[in-house]
Amino acid sequence: MAHATRPAPRFATWLIEGADSPINKALSNPASLGYGADLVGFGGGQPAVESYPLEALERAYASAIREAGRQVLPYGGTQGLPALRELIAERLLRRGIQADPANIVILTGSVQGLHLVGRITLDRGDTIVTEAPTFMGALAAWEPQQPRYVSIPVDEHGLVVDLLAERLRDGDVRAKFLYLLPTFQNPSGVSLSRERRQHLLEVVREHDLLVIEDDPYGEFWFDDGTERIQPLRALPGSEEHVVYVGTFSKILAPGIRLAYAVASPQIVDAMLRTKRGVDFHTDTLLQEAVVRLVRDSEFDLESHVQAGRALYKERRDAMLDALETTFEPETKWTRPAGGFFLWVDLPSGTSAEAVATRGLELGVSVLPGFLFYPNLDGGANGLRLSFSSVTPARVREGIQRLRRAVDSIGE
Amino acid sequence: MAHATRPAPRFATWLIEGADSPINKALSNPASLGYGADLVGFGGGQPAVESYPLEALERAYASAIREAGRQVLPYGGTQGLPALRELIAERLLRRGIQADPANIVILTGSVQGLHLVGRITLDRGDTIVTEAPTFMGALAAWEPQQPRYVSIPVDEHGLVVDLLAERLRDGDVRAKFLYLLPTFQNPSGVSLSRERRQHLLEVVREHDLLVIEDDPYGEFWFDDGTERIQPLRALPGSEEHVVYVGTFSKILAPGIRLAYAVASPQIVDAMLRTKRGVDFHTDTLLQEAVVRLVRDSEFDLESHVQAGRALYKERRDAMLDALETTFEPETKWTRPAGGFFLWVDLPSGTSAEAVATRGLELGVSVLPGFLFYPNLDGGANGLRLSFSSVTPARVREGIQRLRRAVDSIGE
Repeated sequence: MAHATRPAPRFATWLIEGADSPINKALSNPASLGYGADLVGFGGGQPAVESYPLEALERAYASAIREAGRQVLPYGGTQGLPALRELIAERLLRRGIQADPANIVILTGSVQGLHLVGRITLDRGDTIVTEAPTFMGALAAWEPQQPRYVSIPVDEHGLVVDLLAERLRDGDVRAKFLYLLPTFQNPSGVSLSRERRQHLLEVVREHDLLVIEDDPYGEFWFDDGTERIQPLRALPGSEEHVVYVGTFSKILAPGIRLAYAVASPQIVDAMLRTKRGVDFHTDTLLQEAVVRLVRDSEFDLESHVQAGRALYKERRDAMLDALETTFEPETKWTRPAGGFFLWVDLPSGTSAEAVATRGLELGVSVLPGFLFYPNLDGGANGLRLSFSSVTPARVREGIQRLRRAVDSIGE
Repeated sequence: MAHATRPAPRFATWLIEGADSPINKALSNPASLGYGADLVGFGGGQPAVESYPLEALERAYASAIREAGRQVLPYGGTQGLPALRELIAERLLRRGIQADPANIVILTGSVQGLHLVGRITLDRGDTIVTEAPTFMGALAAWEPQQPRYVSIPVDEHGLVVDLLAERLRDGDVRAKFLYLLPTFQNPSGVSLSRERRQHLLEVVREHDLLVIEDDPYGEFWFDDGTERIQPLRALPGSEEHVVYVGTFSKILAPGIRLAYAVASPQIVDAMLRTKRGVDFHTDTLLQEAVVRLVRDSEFDLESHVQAGRALYKERRDAMLDALETTFEPETKWTRPAGGFFLWVDLPSGTSAEAVATRGLELGVSVLPGFLFYPNLDGGANGLRLSFSSVTPARVREGIQRLRRAVDSIGE
């Protein structure tokens, strides 16, 4: 393997430690630093900064503090405000998920949901099944238990469920849970097909496997019909086996840490017991502000999300066009029907890591694919590109820089 | 022991699960529910609701969103906003703690600091040393590692350091860390004396023991001179061994989850690596709002804290007076020089648990002492009383009800 001689880094050292680094700050917000002021940022996974509903958020906080401050500023319940859980249940219904508010846990960001499920299921050295590639940032949630990762490939229809079924049937995989992002996946942008979702549910029920369905991008579909691919958790019979994790990070803003899990009563109880020792409860003022934001008659969350779909679709289209006109057929890429990311496979033998490093010098940031393989055993010529936070004109410029980076490392 | 036959509950089941229960809600906010509308709440540890700086908080959020929304609403750094860490370093200096902002970690509530230190130090079944009694709510942070607890008694001068030294010297205690609240302790209200602080530091250095100094109440001193008892972390030579945990929960409001740790660079690095997988970072909008609150020329945080001292001192005085006039000399209580709590020892043989249960029926809530002993092996006749959220007139009424509860269980 290309990476066999590299000492195995702690998970996502680049990706995660990068959050505090000048490079990552530049990725997120190029203009904020002298460094990288001209960088085109395809590296991060930030929602578009211009989409934040600032005025509505200001009204929501003001009314939460003024009208409900003395009710929501004391210590609160660990599960979260009932009004927020009811609102989440209503919104989930539109995506086909029937969830009792009693089975919803308010989280301080999605990663907390992953952390809590890990905390209640994993012993040291246990096995987790993931997609390959998968969102490496998530794996930090389980790092302290030093799990073993079994990864199952993703193709253009998502996780290859047949292969998972085979390995479970052969008995060579005994996992505590399967972690996946079935919809507009991070990093590949692909979605698990409807047929495979049904098959996956049969497999996990047969083998009594717990599933974490991480769904940060599921509301951002771009094309006719894709909205009708419902989450795994919407399938009848999924209730016991699927922990669904959703978030407000992508539809509102990620700096406020607010997400939620839907799970069976047993899992909910165990998550709550653990959450008490993690942060006791999620910021109740934030919870109240989001309830008020969604109920605000001057703000329509559904129109806001719809505007996000249009914005990200335009950026995806710009990126697909630019790739088409800039790269030859031996370079391949996915055509995501939603979300924030697409995946590029450079011609075999091209070092994506070298391209990513050279790209930074040439003013474009991308993440090398090997970062998204839990055992660092794939993605040598792959790149994750995020189109979510870059305007179409800049997308074209960035793809041209990427082409120059690819060309220059071949020299 | 009185509790030998009771099945050992998961830690603080009553205390912690109670946060979501009708009873606890009644404790925190009696008027908000039909139940317990007349309850006098000595059970919780809530700051006075009337002390929340609502107007300043509203201004702070409004200006943070309006003027800095696009900067602070993206994903942020795991360590926290530099401006907030600088402000915390300035404030700590007044209490004698010299901390480089680079050695401060912003936390989503104090319990997260305890959780992170546990996560980086504990293997399953490891030993933690605590005070006896100690704040049981904190122990939830370490429950998943199922630690063994060695508890060292507290007397009127705080932790009996001689005893700790003896047990460490004898080698019968090998602990991963010592957890203590040396100032205005929860639950006893006592403080570790200056002499013992110095001795404790020598002991932990000699035995290379890590210490978590949890200091939520340290700014609320009531009496001349007590402000000069500096935190352990202020002692020269403490830097490597003491992780100091402070919070905004008591001086602003607990519903917003904002605390911080000061630690050595090695511990800071390890905490950050773990925090990435717990909640990635603490709400950056909240962090920016608190920076603006503290810098707000119309709001003076130090006057606000001073007003809190006066408020809680008045309530403590009312409680000490009421105890004096209501109970006979065979009932003893501590005389805290600050903080939120005092501890009552009923005459030997009186079941504090029965008193607490009867108290609820008679309209006063208190917590039975055994809850604060990690091995449930003490406090049979002890009670924790919180005076922080009850007005002086209600304090007197509550102590009379408590007296009736004590009398009636003897019948």
